[in-house]
Amino acid sequence: MADERPAHPVALPELAAVALEQLETEAADYVFGAAGAEETMRANEEAFRRWRIVPRMLRDVSARDLRVSVLGTEMPAPLGLAPTGAQTIVHPDGELATARAAAAVGLPMAVSTVSDHPLEDVAAAADGPKWFQLYWPVNRELAASLLARAESAGYRALIVTLDAFLPGWKPRDLASAWQPFLKGIGISNYTSDPVFRSLLEKPPEEDPLAAIGQFVMQFTNPRLTWDDLDFLRSHTTLPIALKGILHPDDARLAREHGIDAVIVSNHGGRQVDGAIASLDALPAIVDALGGDLQVLLDSGVRSGADVVKALALGADAVLLGRPYLWGLAAGGEAGVLAVLRGMLAELDLTIGLSGHTRPAELQPSLLRHAPG
Amino acid sequence: MADERPAHPVALPELAAVALEQLETEAADYVFGAAGAEETMRANEEAFRRWRIVPRMLRDVSARDLRVSVLGTEMPAPLGLAPTGAQTIVHPDGELATARAAAAVGLPMAVSTVSDHPLEDVAAAADGPKWFQLYWPVNRELAASLLARAESAGYRALIVTLDAFLPGWKPRDLASAWQPFLKGIGISNYTSDPVFRSLLEKPPEEDPLAAIGQFVMQFTNPRLTWDDLDFLRSHTTLPIALKGILHPDDARLAREHGIDAVIVSNHGGRQVDGAIASLDALPAIVDALGGDLQVLLDSGVRSGADVVKALALGADAVLLGRPYLWGLAAGGEAGVLAVLRGMLAELDLTIGLSGHTRPAELQPSLLRHAPG
Amino acid sequence: MADERPAHPVALPELAAVALEQLETEAADYVFGAAGAEETMRANEEAFRRWRIVPRMLRDVSARDLRVSVLGTEMPAPLGLAPTGAQTIVHPDGELATARAAAAVGLPMAVSTVSDHPLEDVAAAADGPKWFQLYWPVNRELAASLLARAESAGYRALIVTLDAFLPGWKPRDLASAWQPFLKGIGISNYTSDPVFRSLLEKPPEEDPLAAIGQFVMQFTNPRLTWDDLDFLRSHTTLPIALKGILHPDDARLAREHGIDAVIVSNHGGRQVDGAIASLDALPAIVDALGGDLQVLLDSGVRSGADVVKALALGADAVLLGRPYLWGLAAGGEAGVLAVLRGMLAELDLTIGLSGHTRPAELQPSLLRHAPG
Amino acid sequence: MADERPAHPVALPELAAVALEQLETEAADYVFGAAGAEETMRANEEAFRRWRIVPRMLRDVSARDLRVSVLGTEMPAPLGLAPTGAQTIVHPDGELATARAAAAVGLPMAVSTVSDHPLEDVAAAADGPKWFQLYWPVNRELAASLLARAESAGYRALIVTLDAFLPGWKPRDLASAWQPFLKGIGISNYTSDPVFRSLLEKPPEEDPLAAIGQFVMQFTNPRLTWDDLDFLRSHTTLPIALKGILHPDDARLAREHGIDAVIVSNHGGRQVDGAIASLDALPAIVDALGGDLQVLLDSGVRSGADVVKALALGADAVLLGRPYLWGLAAGGEAGVLAVLRGMLAELDLTIGLSGHTRPAELQPSLLRHAPG
Repeated sequence: MADERPAHPVALPELAAVALEQLETEAADYVFGAAGAEETMRANEEAFRRWRIVPRMLRDVSARDLRVSVLGTEMPAPLGLAPTGAQTIVHPDGELATARAAAAVGLPMAVSTVSDHPLEDVAAAADGPKWFQLYWPVNRELAASLLARAESAGYRALIVTLDAFLPGWKPRDLASAWQPFLKGIGISNYTSDPVFRSLLEKPPEEDPLAAIGQFVMQFTNPRLTWDDLDFLRSHTTLPIALKGILHPDDARLAREHGIDAVIVSNHGGRQVDGAIASLDALPAIVDALGGDLQVLLDSGVRSGADVVKALALGADAVLLGRPYLWGLAAGGEAGVLAVLRGMLAELDLTIGLSGHTRPAELQPSLLRHAPG
Repeated sequence: MADERPAHPVALPELAAVALEQLETEAADYVFGAAGAEETMRANEEAFRRWRIVPRMLRDVSARDLRVSVLGTEMPAPLGLAPTGAQTIVHPDGELATARAAAAVGLPMAVSTVSDHPLEDVAAAADGPKWFQLYWPVNRELAASLLARAESAGYRALIVTLDAFLPGWKPRDLASAWQPFLKGIGISNYTSDPVFRSLLEKPPEEDPLAAIGQFVMQFTNPRLTWDDLDFLRSHTTLPIALKGILHPDDARLAREHGIDAVIVSNHGGRQVDGAIASLDALPAIVDALGGDLQVLLDSGVRSGADVVKALALGADAVLLGRPYLWGLAAGGEAGVLAVLRGMLAELDLTIGLSGHTRPAELQPSLLRHAPG
Repeated sequence: MADERPAHPVALPELAAVALEQLETEAADYVFGAAGAEETMRANEEAFRRWRIVPRMLRDVSARDLRVSVLGTEMPAPLGLAPTGAQTIVHPDGELATARAAAAVGLPMAVSTVSDHPLEDVAAAADGPKWFQLYWPVNRELAASLLARAESAGYRALIVTLDAFLPGWKPRDLASAWQPFLKGIGISNYTSDPVFRSLLEKPPEEDPLAAIGQFVMQFTNPRLTWDDLDFLRSHTTLPIALKGILHPDDARLAREHGIDAVIVSNHGGRQVDGAIASLDALPAIVDALGGDLQVLLDSGVRSGADVVKALALGADAVLLGRPYLWGLAAGGEAGVLAVLRGMLAELDLTIGLSGHTRPAELQPSLLRHAPG
Repeated sequence: MADERPAHPVALPELAAVALEQLETEAADYVFGAAGAEETMRANEEAFRRWRIVPRMLRDVSARDLRVSVLGTEMPAPLGLAPTGAQTIVHPDGELATARAAAAVGLPMAVSTVSDHPLEDVAAAADGPKWFQLYWPVNRELAASLLARAESAGYRALIVTLDAFLPGWKPRDLASAWQPFLKGIGISNYTSDPVFRSLLEKPPEEDPLAAIGQFVMQFTNPRLTWDDLDFLRSHTTLPIALKGILHPDDARLAREHGIDAVIVSNHGGRQVDGAIASLDALPAIVDALGGDLQVLLDSGVRSGADVVKALALGADAVLLGRPYLWGLAAGGEAGVLAVLRGMLAELDLTIGLSGHTRPAELQPSLLRHAPG
């Protein structure tokens, strides 16, 4: 038996330590930091600790099938890659590495508006399923252009992030006076966009500071309301998910506005410190929607067991964020792949060992709330 | 883009660490210590952790207006500077630096009876709004004199501290046998007062020890009762707030005695160790008063998110204590200003990102209690 | 009075530290590790902390009698040794040392299917009571052969482990790419079995890799269902306990299938991370069975007081796992014996000092749930 | 103002650190250790943290009077010194130093059966009030002799310890194989007793090992029942308190047997690890007795605020244990005195600052349970 010691740590805390060591301080702050005192980041993880799985025994679980269909995408398991921006900060290959790792296991990757590689390049990097994440710009034609490009590049769904129309208060980034966008990182989807370029006096190649200024102006967009969603709906045939829903009334509003899915999320604790943990917000939203819309969840997912808990509480799928960035930092594509394979393996084993074979079988009765 | 790294840490824990390093042990104990085993100091902060914000999405929050009117003072945001004594212990500029920083952002500063600089000097240092905090002396004429001086110097409200008529049990200060007042620190409002001077046989300049003794005699005043408040009410036209209210029955008594506002406070945990956390005491007091009196809160506020939580639970405004002293220790006026600006920025962003535009919109429904 | 300082630490945390120091990293990971983020391993211990004993005074407890009869075995106390595999990893004497220590105090030892020494050798090592633990192989004749051998070697009961038909997700072992079975450790009960040997083309001595492959094939057995239990029942006259029951409905199914006892267990947190703590699962199972079946418990037991708590909540006996492995690592047979003697002594004192003389007297009323 | 820095740390954690440094390992284990994993020792302290004081304002508290009458003894405050044995282990002056410090502030000292100095010597050391603590020996005449000696030496009450008829399981002491009694420490009340000496073949001076053996035989006494109390009642006119009551039914039995008071105690966590925290047991006992018997409490008291909490929950007085031993270790009589003065000062200030003047005014309404 040859030594098949894996190239990267299997346990996430150790992988995170390797990533932390790899990254420059400012990049590490960007990857590991969150808003404010980072209470919500911690709360996200703690919320999973408060639920306990009660496995069932002696059921034939030899034929497990984790496939689900979410946002019109057939997925090998109820797991996807949450959108994260500016991945070249973490590893030179950035989103391209992530896309290849995701494709290798068939999991859908949500590509951010602020990806470092243009969305077309990420789409071309690997043929796995992809979703486009939209930070809705102030200029509506620019929004429409981004949508059209995503559709044309083969993206299969649209994720609209609602909770970042203003920046979060992030002391770590403020302390280092480090804002990737102000250095021109993560704005390639804009600078490659004809509508965006038409808003500039000179091409971004000639006057990068003006391009950055225009980007910031487009990015900060606190005027959006529910009525604006009709514009999106009328400009794309892709399924639409709203990301950042934490209140059941907002989930109901999503349903009223013809949205296909909500993503329960607090942006990994990066926007409102003190916000409710994502998992704590999930049950009321599932209850409010009664199955009419699909429900996804991110923020705080750190294990296959966490995925099982979110599914049992009503999520149709779960998106993974920070952990794959740790893998990206530690080992590029191979690092991301190690993380995804680990998550899938633990997810499969946890479902099987708890006596189940398919995600749809996971019900709240599988869980008990941890005592006191 | 030039490096605009801030001169002082943005994250409060790091700022506190800088302050701790700057200060002599005894001064650090004074700033960082509290009564007894410091349980209440910790409880104050933990109480905020138990509430979670549930943000609302897709509301137009472009036009935010944080202004409030509290104690008759127009404030740019529902935030003020709690009275803290003897600030030259922390920085040579003491209250003058604090006053200038507060004025720079327009926030009201409560000036303590035991300020190191006479209240007139603090008033003259900067033209921002100021409130006078009274430690009610045994001698009523002295009390009346202090009130008259405060009114004459332009102070706009009176804060009467109720919870310090006896000293707190502070092992840190006792261990170092260090009492600022016994060194003549923080008694300038007395030694500059004609009534106080009339109580002395010789001027304080000639017999400082006798002045200190008289100060201590005036300061310890455990005979006060609710009926004594009528004296204050009849000697000033300023709005009066009672500071140190923790029981709803005392809030009701404040209303019965014609007081304008209560400040829910346990003196930052510096008086009764084991006392209820300030935020935990707030809801019952808000409920008892039914909006008849204004309610302020201090003790444990460490972030803009904390301010939002206190407002949502019914406070009309919040007073900040230790954090601005950390700023004062770390950088004088500039340090205080950095703290205040940070608090205001996070407060503004948190209100906006949670889907609101004005303090009055913040209701208990914005919060959920953190699970077990 | 001579110094009778014990050879091994009495306090378990210190004993564990000695064990950790003794073991190679990979062996230490095997002994100390658990599934996933090891949340359930921690939860197992914490669950005991949440119950508090309320002792009764002034009862004559001079005549204490801890004897119980469990699974048809007369035991000197309601304590046994949980099955643990491959003990030569921990100490060269492995199961033989454990058997001798258990026999020295008369406690029953459950011998694992994956013991390093064949079950006959362990039985011959010492004449204390023994139970055989079965990992049910895919091949039914092999199962029957193992049962027959155990009966023939004098084992008095059969423990069928239900929760390990798939491997747990153990990052520590995966990181070191270390699987004892893949090195041929812990497969002696198979390689010495005629049925197993008949499944191989060449004897294991000639082709060890093929034997290991066959072992793994037999070991992973996720097709088992409740109906398969009838096969076991018809092939042995020994009392049967099902190990790994966490849900009361599974306890009811055990009763329906004529099983004699259930062992409430999550495999020490080594299978499903996030699973309910063993002690937290106990009361509902005791309640479901109403005394019809005997109930044992393992996972998280670290003291005589823990045993008392499990008994008071309805367990008929408790199995000890990791602690005796720490003793084995620290001092072989003598180390195990020290652990068992310590557990028995604290158990006896705790029962006596709480005002009781026999295990059957321990009722839920002896406990109170710890506040908050 | 001269520097009046106190000779010993004022904060108990720092005092404990000094004590720890002063003591030999074995003595430190004896003073700082507890039974088992020391869960109950920790729980004792944590129980106080879960109650919070809600101070009342503007009451005239200038005339505070902390005096109470407990067990027939007039006390300057509702605080006494719990019995602790073998104090020469901690400091050469042992009980004599403690007695002098207690007398200096007028607090009653409970002198242990296993004091190092004979009870007559401790009584003669200082004229403060004293109570005699009885470990009830097997031989009834010996018990009667001890009682008679205590009465004759002026002890004013009898405290019968119920929870130590068997030794606790103390890994720290077992690890060092160190038992003070086996070295003849703490048995002077026996070796000086005529009845005890009559049980020996040779005087203890000639055969110390036989004396120790007889001591141990007398000491371990698990046959006692409630009926035996009548013997005590008939052999002394002193008020009797039973120490170690944790269950309300035992409190009721104490009332039925004509006992004067109960002491809610778990022996500082030194007997049954896992036992309910003393403060957690208090309310049900107060409720069961309805004021018919006096109720005292020890175990976990670390501050004047803790005393206030116990009084508010219904205790008539509180006994202090470990903290005065820390003082004794750190500074002998002066160290004990510093601890007692600190406790009294914080107690007085906490009562006053919470708006009260007498112990009897402290009611449950003064407290609120800390949230989650």
